[in-house]
Amino acid sequence: MSTQQEKTNAPPPSRLSLRRHWGGDQPISFLMQQGVANPDCISLAAGLVDQGSLPAREVQAALQEMLADDHVAKRALQYGTTHGNAELRGQLLGHLAGLEHVGVDQLGVDVNQVILTTGSQQLLSIVGEILLDPEDIVLVAAPTYFVYLGTLNGLGARIIPVATDEDGMRMDALEAKLEEIEAAGDLYRVKLIYLVSYYENPSGVSLSAQRRAESVAIAQRWSKSQRIYILEDAAYRELRYDGPELPSIWSFDADRQTVILAKTFSKTFAPGLRIGFGVVPAELERPICDRKGNEDFGSANFNQHLLSQVFRMGLYDSHVAGLREMYSAKRDAMLHAAETYFGDIPGVSWVHPHGGLYVWMTLPESCDTSLDGQLFREAVQTHGVMYVPGEFSFAGERAERPNHHMRLSYGVQDAAGIDLGMQRLAAAVKSVLAEA
Amino acid sequence: MSTQQEKTNAPPPSRLSLRRHWGGDQPISFLMQQGVANPDCISLAAGLVDQGSLPAREVQAALQEMLADDHVAKRALQYGTTHGNAELRGQLLGHLAGLEHVGVDQLGVDVNQVILTTGSQQLLSIVGEILLDPEDIVLVAAPTYFVYLGTLNGLGARIIPVATDEDGMRMDALEAKLEEIEAAGDLYRVKLIYLVSYYENPSGVSLSAQRRAESVAIAQRWSKSQRIYILEDAAYRELRYDGPELPSIWSFDADRQTVILAKTFSKTFAPGLRIGFGVVPAELERPICDRKGNEDFGSANFNQHLLSQVFRMGLYDSHVAGLREMYSAKRDAMLHAAETYFGDIPGVSWVHPHGGLYVWMTLPESCDTSLDGQLFREAVQTHGVMYVPGEFSFAGERAERPNHHMRLSYGVQDAAGIDLGMQRLAAAVKSVLAEA
Repeated sequence: MSTQQEKTNAPPPSRLSLRRHWGGDQPISFLMQQGVANPDCISLAAGLVDQGSLPAREVQAALQEMLADDHVAKRALQYGTTHGNAELRGQLLGHLAGLEHVGVDQLGVDVNQVILTTGSQQLLSIVGEILLDPEDIVLVAAPTYFVYLGTLNGLGARIIPVATDEDGMRMDALEAKLEEIEAAGDLYRVKLIYLVSYYENPSGVSLSAQRRAESVAIAQRWSKSQRIYILEDAAYRELRYDGPELPSIWSFDADRQTVILAKTFSKTFAPGLRIGFGVVPAELERPICDRKGNEDFGSANFNQHLLSQVFRMGLYDSHVAGLREMYSAKRDAMLHAAETYFGDIPGVSWVHPHGGLYVWMTLPESCDTSLDGQLFREAVQTHGVMYVPGEFSFAGERAERPNHHMRLSYGVQDAAGIDLGMQRLAAAVKSVLAEA
Repeated sequence: MSTQQEKTNAPPPSRLSLRRHWGGDQPISFLMQQGVANPDCISLAAGLVDQGSLPAREVQAALQEMLADDHVAKRALQYGTTHGNAELRGQLLGHLAGLEHVGVDQLGVDVNQVILTTGSQQLLSIVGEILLDPEDIVLVAAPTYFVYLGTLNGLGARIIPVATDEDGMRMDALEAKLEEIEAAGDLYRVKLIYLVSYYENPSGVSLSAQRRAESVAIAQRWSKSQRIYILEDAAYRELRYDGPELPSIWSFDADRQTVILAKTFSKTFAPGLRIGFGVVPAELERPICDRKGNEDFGSANFNQHLLSQVFRMGLYDSHVAGLREMYSAKRDAMLHAAETYFGDIPGVSWVHPHGGLYVWMTLPESCDTSLDGQLFREAVQTHGVMYVPGEFSFAGERAERPNHHMRLSYGVQDAAGIDLGMQRLAAAVKSVLAEA
């Protein structure tokens, strides 16, 4: 029988899902391979947090307390619920109220609207799952968080970039896009506006307070036949070094029916615990939990107990205060190095972020920063420094994306590494510009 | 403007994704609510593991070691990779080799084919994601693991049940179904055969060795235009109390191109850590990791370091040995109670499992065990005992599913709870049968 022969020789090809094809090879994989293949490279690319700052002592103290009681230890080692540990969710409401400077009873949500996830990434992914059919529309800033672009591509979503400036997404540009979409008869397809609200990854800018209010009003006004949600990714909120203390977009959503708030402890505590959470409109609680149930029926209960213990012992706020000081100094080191090494290169500019982990640098348009370009190759192979090509952070066809930006992170390097990395990078840029 | 008024009154409805509608309300949610609403109920329903058996001491010892070195502690608290901790994945290959009684070099897979997930549930879910488009076909045992039926429904898959007996899925029935599907012109839609290979949830039966070999041959023979994969869910493998030590289905897949092996530490160590893993055909490594990257870019690194430390200190095997002894006694207690309380009810039978956590009981067909039926209501509300209705474990339209089975678990109850629960359940059954 011929099929028997096929079996022992080459099996027939796999026929994978459409989603697999939409969501295939992510640029992040290639970047990570480059990092592994060039271990002496100074990475200004990695979005990791500062290794030395990780809360080993705090975790040790909290675990010691938590595991001292056999009963508590065993509860932490048992299955949890899909929503996540109720005590921690209550603490997170308190934490959110503190950030918003209101009482918990003024938040206008109950504890069941707080859902714990595996990093905020899982919340972002699940929001896409429950809202988006292929060809449904998501509006994003240009540039925006590139990992989420990959997730949305994997769902077959249509991603529409909206112009930005130093105050984040431009609201006039957002309205203009919605008008265009409506004129094309596609308004019923618009489901989501994705906004990284604080010290955006990659651009470092924050949406101004006025635009926060406007974005909610726009989402509501354009919710004509169906709800348009805002997904507010506030990952970097607590990493504020200076500049104004901005209220969340979520705080402008009086009815709590428009904004989905995504938060994570990966930047402010420990990414290795993979704890993120969403504060979600009541109507989405069930769909999000059902989907999460199908994906993994709950993130690690042990880690949630641990973080709850960290809050109970008051170890969180002091840790974040220390992070602010440390990252603020590293931010300054990078800006200083930018001035020192790039200040004399014509046509180069960069954003001064008030928080977060990134400096967004713009080169002359003639200087191609893309993964396939000369600069990336020379930076990595000749000069020993790596950055994230700006092209990844733009939606749309690769050939049409701006490709003269770089995302530089001061997350993992110390001050000396930042200085040396920036020096090397400037040398690479000068060398490429000299040849052009 | 009328839309402004809409905003402050009722917002327009959400238009959720098709997947949301396919994957909506899961029966497990209702069961869990019942459990919460009836706290005095003895649950023979919960698939949780024995609380007292959870490895609090082992975890404490491993963490003490792991956190003693600040450098190691911080590595564990940093981001990991999407694949998961490489050291643990290497240890898991060694563990698998031990179960298979071969050397690691005879496994025919490399460490990159081992992928860590949030419980095995996430692996099962991701396999569905990368393989299945809506209407693609998955063949499952009747009955099978009901949580995965929910996941597959959420993908819009067509789930085809295959008859079973005391040796698991019948291979003649599987071939007959494939013939039917081919005759209908749908063979190109068949992507997956899902098999819980050891002490199946819910039926307690294991696929016989001969059928394991046959299932691989059938999948390969029917892979005519595209690969048909077998997803082997070996969650309960190590919880063997007596009976033959069966090789995995995976072991019969000489080329390692047909069987995806899913394993978890939720049953044999601690569900609160949410660590599962897959050993996957080389061709699927990249699609699975890309998808996982989009979902959460990696499960909790901290937990993987912890489990690796548990293996390094040799704490795992002795823990599992203790579990076997404990669950074996509870299995005996449940079988004894079944004999005592159900032995005199005509038309009642049950499976004697050689491992795992479940006893599958069949009642006379006149006795409706479904969630909406009299028995479930009376058992919970009058007699104070809960079971999982058998109907959940069958694919297909609810009205057409067998509804005279119950899944009974001896996971969480102690011997006294098992005895009392079974006594109560028998009283409920007798009362319903008496009225019929």
